[in-house]
Amino acid sequence: MSKTLDLGKYLQQVMEKEPQVHCITNFVTVNGCANIILACGGRPVMAHHVKEAEEITQGSDALVLNMGTVNDVEAMLLAGRRSNELGHPVILDPVGVSGSAFRRETFARLTEEIQFQAIRGNVSEIRYIATGHSRAAGVDVCRTEQITEETVGETAAMAQAVSRRLGCVVAVSGPVDVVADGSEAVLLRGGHPLMARVTGTGCMSAALLGAFLGAAAAKSPQSVGGRFESETTSPQNPDCLFEAAAAAAAMMKVCGSLAYEKTAVEGGGTMTFGMHLIDAVSLLTPQHLNLLAKISRWPEAGAGPGEGGDK
Amino acid sequence: MSKTLDLGKYLQQVMEKEPQVHCITNFVTVNGCANIILACGGRPVMAHHVKEAEEITQGSDALVLNMGTVNDVEAMLLAGRRSNELGHPVILDPVGVSGSAFRRETFARLTEEIQFQAIRGNVSEIRYIATGHSRAAGVDVCRTEQITEETVGETAAMAQAVSRRLGCVVAVSGPVDVVADGSEAVLLRGGHPLMARVTGTGCMSAALLGAFLGAAAAKSPQSVGGRFESETTSPQNPDCLFEAAAAAAAMMKVCGSLAYEKTAVEGGGTMTFGMHLIDAVSLLTPQHLNLLAKISRWPEAGAGPGEGGDK
Amino acid sequence: MSKTLDLGKYLQQVMEKEPQVHCITNFVTVNGCANIILACGGRPVMAHHVKEAEEITQGSDALVLNMGTVNDVEAMLLAGRRSNELGHPVILDPVGVSGSAFRRETFARLTEEIQFQAIRGNVSEIRYIATGHSRAAGVDVCRTEQITEETVGETAAMAQAVSRRLGCVVAVSGPVDVVADGSEAVLLRGGHPLMARVTGTGCMSAALLGAFLGAAAAKSPQSVGGRFESETTSPQNPDCLFEAAAAAAAMMKVCGSLAYEKTAVEGGGTMTFGMHLIDAVSLLTPQHLNLLAKISRWPEAGAGPGEGGDK
Repeated sequence: MSKTLDLGKYLQQVMEKEPQVHCITNFVTVNGCANIILACGGRPVMAHHVKEAEEITQGSDALVLNMGTVNDVEAMLLAGRRSNELGHPVILDPVGVSGSAFRRETFARLTEEIQFQAIRGNVSEIRYIATGHSRAAGVDVCRTEQITEETVGETAAMAQAVSRRLGCVVAVSGPVDVVADGSEAVLLRGGHPLMARVTGTGCMSAALLGAFLGAAAAKSPQSVGGRFESETTSPQNPDCLFEAAAAAAAMMKVCGSLAYEKTAVEGGGTMTFGMHLIDAVSLLTPQHLNLLAKISRWPEAGAGPGEGGDK
Repeated sequence: MSKTLDLGKYLQQVMEKEPQVHCITNFVTVNGCANIILACGGRPVMAHHVKEAEEITQGSDALVLNMGTVNDVEAMLLAGRRSNELGHPVILDPVGVSGSAFRRETFARLTEEIQFQAIRGNVSEIRYIATGHSRAAGVDVCRTEQITEETVGETAAMAQAVSRRLGCVVAVSGPVDVVADGSEAVLLRGGHPLMARVTGTGCMSAALLGAFLGAAAAKSPQSVGGRFESETTSPQNPDCLFEAAAAAAAMMKVCGSLAYEKTAVEGGGTMTFGMHLIDAVSLLTPQHLNLLAKISRWPEAGAGPGEGGDK
Repeated sequence: MSKTLDLGKYLQQVMEKEPQVHCITNFVTVNGCANIILACGGRPVMAHHVKEAEEITQGSDALVLNMGTVNDVEAMLLAGRRSNELGHPVILDPVGVSGSAFRRETFARLTEEIQFQAIRGNVSEIRYIATGHSRAAGVDVCRTEQITEETVGETAAMAQAVSRRLGCVVAVSGPVDVVADGSEAVLLRGGHPLMARVTGTGCMSAALLGAFLGAAAAKSPQSVGGRFESETTSPQNPDCLFEAAAAAAAMMKVCGSLAYEKTAVEGGGTMTFGMHLIDAVSLLTPQHLNLLAKISRWPEAGAGPGEGGDK
């Protein structure tokens, strides 16, 4: 599959267009989100004040809304609606969506008033969106719900259902990542379990989505006259957004693997790993992203779980 | 003493029960607090919104309230009272309590309305709680008040007095740590002065307390039917909370020492040290915690200050 | 020039006086700001609550106001006016000042009601302050406006004009840093482009300014009877503040260079660099600051751009 899907192209676009990514996000992981956007070549702006949310969005190429500590719902709504008008990709990270009534209501309001281009969550969060319930208590995935090789098909189907309902790309993070839109799905393997032992890797994945989708959609010498010039965003996901989302997810997986290798050599722990993770994002080339990505289309050729088309 | 006090058992409990620790904390050190809870095996949730504080606490095993930038007093009160009802350990970090009238009032209100199971501070903070005054100006310990081998006895007596008055374990951080309840006290040696040159090591100690006390008190296959099942927290500190607090303090001291060793070899500065500190927490085994902890009961066998029963 | 300007003296003062630096700053980079103040020898207090801003400032030696996410304008005004009364240096970091109407208004209000002793920004921010317009969209410098060897003279003149109008030292960060007051200007070379790939290096520069100006102005055994004892701050910048600001800027440049050397040897990326940057601040001696600083007076001896008096 890596022959048919040029993921590196999307990283190249980020490096060339340097998209400005407006994030309204939580205070726990905001620093990591800014740093990973800078690492891949984008320009982060973490402006959450209601008095400037629209104006900042206007000068940006993408908007990332993260529900981690949900303080700024009005600013999110203002920025989201303005981004929709401008045709900027809007990404939602519904952190811990099932964990409180306040989060469930916030999610409902955001998805009602904003057309998202991508939603990224762990499987408990996506399950809640798909079915209205989940066994997760806090912001982490519920262990018994976690994606396994056995449940990857079910997860892909669920992601596709959410994609059709909300009209956006759906990215599910876990031991195997699933990226889906209404018509197709890919699986990303790789990464490392240590990613769940550092706070913010999920939020950072959403931040990367912002950079990749922002670059894919941004006007530039190459793209002037492209689809986002004179129209507002439509519920259909253009192919480029699906592929850009797959590239962002692949980037995280590849960099998780690379970071683990360096950490293991040094005998490091979780913080060393976290540092090497963003380091790897800052060092990876488009060529190596293509070379190292373990991506396969779902349903996988050969069928049975555990096989699949990993290159 | 390490023969009579199995500190490693409490780390083992954290690793097995993976307690969810709800923190309402400051924006300076929130990332480090989340990461150290993850590093030792817990699951952090940093939710401070007044609309969800109670609901998040309900799904958690412990609550940590940190007065570092004191924005969320109402959320703290809601979460604290609910945790009391549920019998979850509640830990207070009275950062810079003597530094402003606002902090003094907040402290008074929190201790009036919430029964804490542990309070952790530097000696200036604990002195203020004990006596109503302190020479500290900001959030740091006042240098002339700092714990020394000469004042460790006085500090232990002061911690015990606070413990009796507020009905909770009291942990005092410094060159020598003191952990006390109404009937006993232990001293923890080790660590490194660099711990005071990285922001958040105090807050992280309180976060570790949350994980250790949360695990010690949490229901689990082993503990179902235990003391927290059907009763609300009582002012008496069960032994397990005192020992769990000593284990958390020992963990910080041991990891500070280990982090310094690695930093010195690499010729690193304060940030390298900070990284290795959390790294060490993520790598330490219960066996090594028992092996490396420098704990002694106070008053120390042999009496005179400076001797003591360090193993 | 390093023979005539003893930059190391100002670092020495920080290490001896341990100034308490009160920062009202943004949540993206607050941790790095606290850590760099600790690294150079100061004591950070990041208190932004309106109910304690004045009281915290009162016990501090300097105040740093950072407009990064502009939430706390009332607290900034209270703390700034109180610092003015007490004669504490007040430093402004007008992050992204031209990026929104809200920021432009906030800047106008702050400079109207507070007498600053230093303002630090990138060239787009300083250009906006000088001329009322800038081509920057977010919080980053506009690339076509960035300081080059060709435009360094124009930048120095602009900084001096702002200095005369606002009565404070003006520090412009970029590939070449410019520090100016109404009567003189110096250039600082060194550093590394990676500094722009880590979030918060600008904010950290302002935090360093707080520590260096705070120490230079603080009463101490050496300085009792000095200019800040019984008078309020005057719009004239005493020489010591200009030199202290140059020393802080030099510190950042030197540490950026040192951090890059270590990062390159290790094959690290942006996060490794960020760690080594603060590490270097914690390890640099006053002697090495003097030895490694690339400072020259502007206009440079020999005239033409690109030459200059670098030692």
